[in-house]
Amino acid sequence: MTSYDAAFSRTGAQLAGSAIRQMGILAAGRPDLISFAPGYPDPGSFAWEAYREITDDLLRERSDDTLQYGPTRGYGPLIEAVVPRLRARGIECSSDNVLITSGSQQGLDLVTRLFVDAGDVVLMELPTFTGAIAAFRAAEAHLVGVRQEADGIDLGHLDAVLTEQRAAGRRVKFLYVIPNFQNPTGGLLGTAKRRALLEWSAREDVLIVEDDPYGDLWFEGVTRPEDTRPIKADDHDGRVIYLQSTSKTLAPTFRTAWVVAPPPIIARLDVAKQSADLCSSTLDQRIVLEAITRGVLDVQVPTLRETYAHKCDVMARALAREAGDLVRWAPPRGGFFLWVTLPDGVDTRAMLPQAIEAQVIYVAGAPFFVDGTGANSLRLAFSAASLPRIEEGMARLATVIRMAAA
Amino acid sequence: MTSYDAAFSRTGAQLAGSAIRQMGILAAGRPDLISFAPGYPDPGSFAWEAYREITDDLLRERSDDTLQYGPTRGYGPLIEAVVPRLRARGIECSSDNVLITSGSQQGLDLVTRLFVDAGDVVLMELPTFTGAIAAFRAAEAHLVGVRQEADGIDLGHLDAVLTEQRAAGRRVKFLYVIPNFQNPTGGLLGTAKRRALLEWSAREDVLIVEDDPYGDLWFEGVTRPEDTRPIKADDHDGRVIYLQSTSKTLAPTFRTAWVVAPPPIIARLDVAKQSADLCSSTLDQRIVLEAITRGVLDVQVPTLRETYAHKCDVMARALAREAGDLVRWAPPRGGFFLWVTLPDGVDTRAMLPQAIEAQVIYVAGAPFFVDGTGANSLRLAFSAASLPRIEEGMARLATVIRMAAA
Repeated sequence: MTSYDAAFSRTGAQLAGSAIRQMGILAAGRPDLISFAPGYPDPGSFAWEAYREITDDLLRERSDDTLQYGPTRGYGPLIEAVVPRLRARGIECSSDNVLITSGSQQGLDLVTRLFVDAGDVVLMELPTFTGAIAAFRAAEAHLVGVRQEADGIDLGHLDAVLTEQRAAGRRVKFLYVIPNFQNPTGGLLGTAKRRALLEWSAREDVLIVEDDPYGDLWFEGVTRPEDTRPIKADDHDGRVIYLQSTSKTLAPTFRTAWVVAPPPIIARLDVAKQSADLCSSTLDQRIVLEAITRGVLDVQVPTLRETYAHKCDVMARALAREAGDLVRWAPPRGGFFLWVTLPDGVDTRAMLPQAIEAQVIYVAGAPFFVDGTGANSLRLAFSAASLPRIEEGMARLATVIRMAAA
Repeated sequence: MTSYDAAFSRTGAQLAGSAIRQMGILAAGRPDLISFAPGYPDPGSFAWEAYREITDDLLRERSDDTLQYGPTRGYGPLIEAVVPRLRARGIECSSDNVLITSGSQQGLDLVTRLFVDAGDVVLMELPTFTGAIAAFRAAEAHLVGVRQEADGIDLGHLDAVLTEQRAAGRRVKFLYVIPNFQNPTGGLLGTAKRRALLEWSAREDVLIVEDDPYGDLWFEGVTRPEDTRPIKADDHDGRVIYLQSTSKTLAPTFRTAWVVAPPPIIARLDVAKQSADLCSSTLDQRIVLEAITRGVLDVQVPTLRETYAHKCDVMARALAREAGDLVRWAPPRGGFFLWVTLPDGVDTRAMLPQAIEAQVIYVAGAPFFVDGTGANSLRLAFSAASLPRIEEGMARLATVIRMAAA
């Protein structure tokens, strides 16, 4: 057979690769290429020696469960350890509210399967995380964007969009938001808006899916910890499904994240995960648990805040110096990303071949917008590159932008 | 909110937990309970010291990619290492034919998403693996069972079922088969039938999904290696999607398996996996790679064959001694399972509370049948329990069966 087109499902036939992942593959094995594309954590931040000691202990201990299949819901002691940490962030919960997932991407995928039938509406920020867009598209969701202001989602537009979608006879399943250091804008959702979204959720009877991988990574001096308080912390009515991950704080390889939701939702996510991958790796979950109980995470996080704040600052200064007359951005108050707007008429996707030629890559802005806009924007991750490469990369990027804008 | 019923998707509303997983949870933390329920590998078989050395080396080496996000397709050197092993089993392939998945369960899930729209037909053996049933149901597939004979699937019934489904106007997407030491029957698909299935696939233009987690675990003296030759090995036309796993040979915790298929299918599975979990753990994949290159797997497999053949023999003898007058089974020629048929009228699901009372558990047969039959059958995994517990467990089970059959 040379073509399988007739055999594919509707979802299978329309699968399109992620712009971020494509850039990640492009950068791999090309050391001369400076990549600001994928949101990879700083490789210099990994606690190698701690993980070595932990795995050494775990594999000497030879507890049966370490290498065996584990419960789909997750490794029990890890769930127990996560609960007090969630409480410390204001989220009242017990172990019945938590399910471990293979990264938050799986959490998004499972939540989507649980709630979305083909044609159901998912509301999302404009722009938003491409991985979420992909998970929702795989379920044939009807994706509708909501504009953002300086302090996050535009509540007036949210109301308008909801009314419009309901008038069209569509079922609106949930609003997907990334309140803390949004991907890709780096924006922080204002405190008042967080409360307003909860009221909106209750009034309109629409769930909120709150994705919070960057919440711990606020920048000292410009963000207070209380500014990052999850929407979920004030959800006394079970309307928010909250996702948190260790990929941006410990390391992506452990694929360890969790969903926090009311027990009836967790119970069904558990069943959905059974058919998705049976269970996540117990060894990886035990490493993460030990990294929590031995204090690795608590030592790591303040260091990461400093590292990323500094990298962000270096990138912003270099970009201002090299191309301040051509581009603009809102200074991030945490997280991994600088979101850059270029002059009208510049198409950052069309500019990519020149950027690759100049040995620098980014993620073009358009794939983050479900409404087809954003052609003149791009996302830069300052998280992974070294400081000298950030400096050099901004110079290369400026040259490319200057040519494109000419 | 106290009920989310109105918000769930059709799939979400009908999710039902796996009978195997439920039994697994029941057994955990109850050392007095003898479990033959989940198909767990023998915990005594794990190569603890090898994994300790390997992880120690990997975490000392500090290669950037070990803890970082990896390619969705899988860790390149692992894919390269898998190819010659597949060739050794007769499967002509290159790295373009391979995608690493988070266990074969994810492979099944991704294949389903790629091909199955709601209402599409998937053909499966009667009985078959509940995890596959769950993955297909999650996509709202219309599941149709095909009877089995002593040497596997009944080709006459396969033709009849296909004709019937097409006459009903349904699209038949693929046939799912487990040719080697089938789950749950332990059966081995005959060589002639393997060829016949390939011819059927070409004639009828229906794909075959071949799941082969147990293929290496044939029993010396009753099975020759060539009896386990994959259907995929003779597929020169790209009609077979082949799944293989390390969960039953190395350890389940690494969640490392692979799908082998034509490049156009692999490319789309890659994209489907992006939205499912971005990537599998690179650390886990590197451990598996080292276990292959350092010879751990090749040392392990012959030992496993002996171990499981012996356990199977002990179980079969004990069961014959304790309940030979009441039950029957076909002697397994490999794998993990003894598939037991009880007298007509005995319902193994209804019998479970008595079994739990007697401190022994199994998986009831009915959930393995998509046609609602199988009430008087049950699956026993001889793989995980120790020899004394197998002996004692058969005595307990016999008591329970005897009461139920009385």
